[in-house]
Amino acid sequence: MTQSRSVLLLNGPNLNLLGTRQPEVYGSTTLAEIEARCIEQAKGLGLTLEARQSNHEGELVDWIQAARQQFAAIIINPGAFTHTSVALLDALQAFEGLVIEVHLSNIHRRESFRHHSYVSLAATGAIVGLGAQGYDLALQAIAARLTEV
Amino acid sequence: MTQSRSVLLLNGPNLNLLGTRQPEVYGSTTLAEIEARCIEQAKGLGLTLEARQSNHEGELVDWIQAARQQFAAIIINPGAFTHTSVALLDALQAFEGLVIEVHLSNIHRRESFRHHSYVSLAATGAIVGLGAQGYDLALQAIAARLTEV
Amino acid sequence: MTQSRSVLLLNGPNLNLLGTRQPEVYGSTTLAEIEARCIEQAKGLGLTLEARQSNHEGELVDWIQAARQQFAAIIINPGAFTHTSVALLDALQAFEGLVIEVHLSNIHRRESFRHHSYVSLAATGAIVGLGAQGYDLALQAIAARLTEV
Amino acid sequence: MTQSRSVLLLNGPNLNLLGTRQPEVYGSTTLAEIEARCIEQAKGLGLTLEARQSNHEGELVDWIQAARQQFAAIIINPGAFTHTSVALLDALQAFEGLVIEVHLSNIHRRESFRHHSYVSLAATGAIVGLGAQGYDLALQAIAARLTEV
Amino acid sequence: MTQSRSVLLLNGPNLNLLGTRQPEVYGSTTLAEIEARCIEQAKGLGLTLEARQSNHEGELVDWIQAARQQFAAIIINPGAFTHTSVALLDALQAFEGLVIEVHLSNIHRRESFRHHSYVSLAATGAIVGLGAQGYDLALQAIAARLTEV
Amino acid sequence: MTQSRSVLLLNGPNLNLLGTRQPEVYGSTTLAEIEARCIEQAKGLGLTLEARQSNHEGELVDWIQAARQQFAAIIINPGAFTHTSVALLDALQAFEGLVIEVHLSNIHRRESFRHHSYVSLAATGAIVGLGAQGYDLALQAIAARLTEV
Amino acid sequence: MTQSRSVLLLNGPNLNLLGTRQPEVYGSTTLAEIEARCIEQAKGLGLTLEARQSNHEGELVDWIQAARQQFAAIIINPGAFTHTSVALLDALQAFEGLVIEVHLSNIHRRESFRHHSYVSLAATGAIVGLGAQGYDLALQAIAARLTEV
Amino acid sequence: MTQSRSVLLLNGPNLNLLGTRQPEVYGSTTLAEIEARCIEQAKGLGLTLEARQSNHEGELVDWIQAARQQFAAIIINPGAFTHTSVALLDALQAFEGLVIEVHLSNIHRRESFRHHSYVSLAATGAIVGLGAQGYDLALQAIAARLTEV
Amino acid sequence: MTQSRSVLLLNGPNLNLLGTRQPEVYGSTTLAEIEARCIEQAKGLGLTLEARQSNHEGELVDWIQAARQQFAAIIINPGAFTHTSVALLDALQAFEGLVIEVHLSNIHRRESFRHHSYVSLAATGAIVGLGAQGYDLALQAIAARLTEV
Amino acid sequence: MTQSRSVLLLNGPNLNLLGTRQPEVYGSTTLAEIEARCIEQAKGLGLTLEARQSNHEGELVDWIQAARQQFAAIIINPGAFTHTSVALLDALQAFEGLVIEVHLSNIHRRESFRHHSYVSLAATGAIVGLGAQGYDLALQAIAARLTEV
Amino acid sequence: MTQSRSVLLLNGPNLNLLGTRQPEVYGSTTLAEIEARCIEQAKGLGLTLEARQSNHEGELVDWIQAARQQFAAIIINPGAFTHTSVALLDALQAFEGLVIEVHLSNIHRRESFRHHSYVSLAATGAIVGLGAQGYDLALQAIAARLTEV
Amino acid sequence: MTQSRSVLLLNGPNLNLLGTRQPEVYGSTTLAEIEARCIEQAKGLGLTLEARQSNHEGELVDWIQAARQQFAAIIINPGAFTHTSVALLDALQAFEGLVIEVHLSNIHRRESFRHHSYVSLAATGAIVGLGAQGYDLALQAIAARLTEV
Repeated sequence: MTQSRSVLLLNGPNLNLLGTRQPEVYGSTTLAEIEARCIEQAKGLGLTLEARQSNHEGELVDWIQAARQQFAAIIINPGAFTHTSVALLDALQAFEGLVIEVHLSNIHRRESFRHHSYVSLAATGAIVGLGAQGYDLALQAIAARLTEV
Repeated sequence: MTQSRSVLLLNGPNLNLLGTRQPEVYGSTTLAEIEARCIEQAKGLGLTLEARQSNHEGELVDWIQAARQQFAAIIINPGAFTHTSVALLDALQAFEGLVIEVHLSNIHRRESFRHHSYVSLAATGAIVGLGAQGYDLALQAIAARLTEV
Repeated sequence: MTQSRSVLLLNGPNLNLLGTRQPEVYGSTTLAEIEARCIEQAKGLGLTLEARQSNHEGELVDWIQAARQQFAAIIINPGAFTHTSVALLDALQAFEGLVIEVHLSNIHRRESFRHHSYVSLAATGAIVGLGAQGYDLALQAIAARLTEV
Repeated sequence: MTQSRSVLLLNGPNLNLLGTRQPEVYGSTTLAEIEARCIEQAKGLGLTLEARQSNHEGELVDWIQAARQQFAAIIINPGAFTHTSVALLDALQAFEGLVIEVHLSNIHRRESFRHHSYVSLAATGAIVGLGAQGYDLALQAIAARLTEV
Repeated sequence: MTQSRSVLLLNGPNLNLLGTRQPEVYGSTTLAEIEARCIEQAKGLGLTLEARQSNHEGELVDWIQAARQQFAAIIINPGAFTHTSVALLDALQAFEGLVIEVHLSNIHRRESFRHHSYVSLAATGAIVGLGAQGYDLALQAIAARLTEV
Repeated sequence: MTQSRSVLLLNGPNLNLLGTRQPEVYGSTTLAEIEARCIEQAKGLGLTLEARQSNHEGELVDWIQAARQQFAAIIINPGAFTHTSVALLDALQAFEGLVIEVHLSNIHRRESFRHHSYVSLAATGAIVGLGAQGYDLALQAIAARLTEV
Repeated sequence: MTQSRSVLLLNGPNLNLLGTRQPEVYGSTTLAEIEARCIEQAKGLGLTLEARQSNHEGELVDWIQAARQQFAAIIINPGAFTHTSVALLDALQAFEGLVIEVHLSNIHRRESFRHHSYVSLAATGAIVGLGAQGYDLALQAIAARLTEV
Repeated sequence: MTQSRSVLLLNGPNLNLLGTRQPEVYGSTTLAEIEARCIEQAKGLGLTLEARQSNHEGELVDWIQAARQQFAAIIINPGAFTHTSVALLDALQAFEGLVIEVHLSNIHRRESFRHHSYVSLAATGAIVGLGAQGYDLALQAIAARLTEV
Repeated sequence: MTQSRSVLLLNGPNLNLLGTRQPEVYGSTTLAEIEARCIEQAKGLGLTLEARQSNHEGELVDWIQAARQQFAAIIINPGAFTHTSVALLDALQAFEGLVIEVHLSNIHRRESFRHHSYVSLAATGAIVGLGAQGYDLALQAIAARLTEV
Repeated sequence: MTQSRSVLLLNGPNLNLLGTRQPEVYGSTTLAEIEARCIEQAKGLGLTLEARQSNHEGELVDWIQAARQQFAAIIINPGAFTHTSVALLDALQAFEGLVIEVHLSNIHRRESFRHHSYVSLAATGAIVGLGAQGYDLALQAIAARLTEV
Repeated sequence: MTQSRSVLLLNGPNLNLLGTRQPEVYGSTTLAEIEARCIEQAKGLGLTLEARQSNHEGELVDWIQAARQQFAAIIINPGAFTHTSVALLDALQAFEGLVIEVHLSNIHRRESFRHHSYVSLAATGAIVGLGAQGYDLALQAIAARLTEV
Repeated sequence: MTQSRSVLLLNGPNLNLLGTRQPEVYGSTTLAEIEARCIEQAKGLGLTLEARQSNHEGELVDWIQAARQQFAAIIINPGAFTHTSVALLDALQAFEGLVIEVHLSNIHRRESFRHHSYVSLAATGAIVGLGAQGYDLALQAIAARLTEV
């Protein structure tokens, strides 16, 4: 079934600014470039990928709910919602596919309020601090698991 | 005045999934069915009821604000926003009618971050852990109070 | 079996003062009147109800233990023991019927030591802040559940 | 009115052991002797005093409730219940007369779980660490206040 | 450059109710009146001001992001989001202009959950408890700083 | 002296239910059977044993106080009072003989509020998680110590 | 020895305002009047009393140190320093006479930062919440103890 | 009445060092210059201003007490005493005029022990992180309020 | 199978000092003597016992891992590692036999950092505060359980 | 330089048990098989890999120190030491190459003491909850970074 | 420059009592003797030393501020202010010379409120628990550092 | 007795790296050089010194135990074990000679998990933040004390 190899890539608040703010910290790659590369990579792994970003918690919840019929896996970088959104947690817990959480920076080396993740409670696994490559590794993790099944 | 017997039923994030996820836990009744039954029940109690659901905190705040002119009472199951939304608390505190908080499951037997409710600080009362019947009981509590006044 | 529709109504410490202290806060209805109304209501729902009150934790534990053979459900307003009695919790956990916790006032809007309930850990559900009507609603919740089974 | 000068002296759990355990710490005066002296003292101040002791929280609650009709003031050394009994707090809050809390030893210099007093939340004042004289001073405080009124 | 003297005034959830709820507490001035006065004041200080309000966290984030190209300073009263929104913090940290946080009431004298502000971590300064005048003072602080540069 | 080899076995709230609730967890041995076995065992060790159970904290305190003249040692399974009763702690501290605390289950693997024991502060030692055999081992510990003296 | 019956009465910061602020709360008796009454009372008990007040922590420490040669007892109402001054605690611990701590209001019913007292760690006892009579009772406690020795 | 437009400007410990330490952080303006500018500004607003600084908590308390007869408002930068002085809080609570708290730097972005302010509990409002301009803005806030009355 | 009645006795850091330090506290029995007695006792119960001690966490982990093939039960007094070693916990959780934790002194009456035990999370039960006899009782508990199976 | 593409793979306590305990949870792959696969994978990426495991914290510290001269990167699964070893943290902080932390299971969904990682404070990034594939992904992250430089 | 080898020795509250209270604990050496010895020692190290003591926090702050022009180093035993004075911390942070903190007793083995030191945040180093010799060692540390520069 | 003037110098994990990592922070002196200097210094003070370093907690415990027969004093820089090792604490408590704790950097100005020291609970005193000179000062403290005895 084609659908079973579809991946939804979700980026949360402020990640649309990637490449345009503090390039010395976050690099100069834009979110559009990352998404394009992920689509490319997914293809190489026999997956299809759809990428979306939102600053709105409710919109992300809507998308995760709708994903239940359509996607086999979600890669999510919840940005600031990582630490505050029980609603995302609940939506992800209702999603039966794979969930891989990605953070560009090592959140455990930042302010203490960034050390706790609600999303982790619903995630299969997490890739933290490895920059944009984190998305690629998440895709590989998904490819391997979808093949296994 | 007709308006003084109008009730607004609000359901928060992910409650639109009722009946479609983990039916063995949450039962197979959908939110639409619950809302229909509430409308029916309200009628029997001489009340009118309008039901809405949203995954967007801001939309719920908008609705509560608008309710100030229109509704005598609000029944709210804030879902995940129970534990995180000071904005809902503030909106409800500006609402002068009755506020009954409903939770389908007993939140005090779940993870510790679900034990605290901001919404309780603005609620007249709460009905917890009694499933969809909680909405019916909330309607009765409202009917009794509106009659008293 | 008749017994399976018997309900035990338990009120904890100081609830025998209802109606006689701070009537402007707690209303002028006495506990005797509440109990009488509950017995009446129960009858209307095809239930029988026996009402008891005690200021003694041990006596409440004794009654809950004895209820195991006799009652299908317990409605309990544990008063101050809500927050301090692990013994009540253990007794209720050994009771296999329904347990509905009732609080007249919204304990979540009072002093912080009243926000935690040991009894909730053993309760099916709770009705909080709806005054003496809370007992009526508890009876309905029980009636509905006993019918289902 | 005679009744308005009656004082109830309550001692909580283990205070009946006074004079018989660790006399080098607690002195060799027994509770009976203390009570006798208090009755004597009360007489000198134009008060009547009735003294009771119990190891049972429920019994103390019963007595405080009954005191509402009969006594103008309560002197209470709640012993271990100081730190654990919300039921005593609630009973004392329903009592409209004076409440003076007495502790023989300075509880703030003992284990940390003895630093907090629920009873203080309902007390007019407290006398701590002054041994059996604490009861005498409490009587004087009451005598002065009852005269004022 | 004209743009370098533009100020964005943002008000968060429930602030649109100003003047219409609890006028005895919050005064009878509406948000529209406040915004009009700010625009007037800004003009007097050689600034231009654009005013917006939203109950939606995501919308506020969108506006702050867009402000990066257009505005030299942001005055923000984040309302309830003060205490819960890491997303606003992140958006403001990506904004390179001045950020002045305004609260109408003295939040340090309210409930303890209102004492902490995520927004303060990204703010140049804050004006608290001085009512609607706080916005005027914020404008002056901005005018002084933009002149300095 | 005969008295110096007398042991008092105390069981706290809900332990009278042993063998009758959740036999798959707590085993099918009743408290009566355990007490009988302990009396038998004591005899074999040259001790006499008296066994009592109560759901009333005050009654347990009374018994411990009275034990001061009569018993050389107390074996106590305080049940739920383990975690809440400072009164039991005080009574045990006034008892000069041996005190062995017994818990049938390993309380450190249960809910966090069961990890703390007030009784431990007055106990010689504790035997935890070894089921009904814990009472036997406590008897042996006492026999060895009474012999030593 | 005359000196052995001398008492030092110390009042800490802001207590010099007694009688002049919020008379409806603190009464209309001034500190000067209280001190005069205490001197009178002391005389009746065969004691001499010297009264001082300071808003300066260092001055209170100086006085307590000097008291070591001169006074048999200190009555201290440390006001705000109760909760913040380890220096007062240390000075009082170096004083070998009696130390009675007095608070006019029941500090345990005020803000939580007023519940802890450093001074209690060095005090013989405390009298709390009994208004200006607290000083009189402290004098009696001292008179009784100095007589005993 | 002239007096009713008098303002007392108080600066706490170490603020006398302004302009002479870490000028790259705190600027090169001295406290004397700030005070002079404030006096000037006050004049322009129809106010008179008296400026004082002390490193002594007790001296600040003395001044605030004396201000009760003389000043309509206090502007206070309590420096380090912000976080430790309950005595200042009590003195300010006894002052019936306006109290504006000023901090040069944004204390919420510094060490965590600087996030809490006792003084805020007695302040009308606060201006934080806006440097020496904070004093000017405080004067304006006062001028506006004194005019209103 | 012979192996199924083999017991491994492990003692952690500093327990090799038994009998040689503070004999007035820990008694004068050496660890060698304790181990010899345990071997003797084991024999009497139809068990074989091998005794080891190490100050090295890693060595204890190695031994527990190796015990999986060889021993039916482990008696462990983890000494200081009780409170700090998650590695011991993990090793014990991988061991499928019985695990009895022994402490010579009552750790709940010592410093607060000694109240928590990681090892308890993997233990069948614990014997605390009964000195060297604790090992004997542990052997009996094991003997009884191995017989049952 | 050949050395600059050498990777050290370290596994901490109890990871040598992989494949032999709870295969239904941890899978049936042994550590030897994982290490072999990593060596293979490394070769494909132009890296060399050396694999070691220890249950001894000190030995892991020794190896990390020695790695400073020899290895360009460390992949470490610290097992239980993740949560308790500041020594590992310090050793890794002195290592100047890349550090990737790997956990087989999602530690954020396990007991709360497993949520905190000292090692994260010294790690470039982490891969959590993706089973043995985590090691492969870590190798790819390293390969990409070593190529970049 | 002569001035650059001047040292200021500051002792805080209650240290003037040294040698006169509890000589069995603090020794019989007075502060005057310690100061004399320090002056002597300083001479031997080519330093000059000025010694002062105060019970007044403000006076210590004044002295530290004035020291900025005059002294190359400060040795400070802040006594009770160690734990409570942010004002001392701020004054010391404005001092650019060396700061050595000295405590006569090991504060980490005393009450928990003595474990935290604000002064440590501004100190170069600390010498704790070595009695009066601590001052000598501090002088040597200073001598060595002033020579290095 | 010669032995009574022997000192054992122990350095914990990662201190063997001194001089080779971050020389700009920790200086370029190696541990070998520090140890050599200490041996020299000891000689000058009439002491003998033996120096050892280990990354293994167990080895440090072994050495401290063995030191009981051989050394009059221990100087220990426990490195990371300062904060995590109860085993070191217990070993040091069994050592009857002097124990001086040394830290090169001021641990109170580093991460909060470095503020607590288990070793301090067994130490005579501590020297913190004075670099390698801390060892010299510790030697002097020991020389003075050994002479006194």
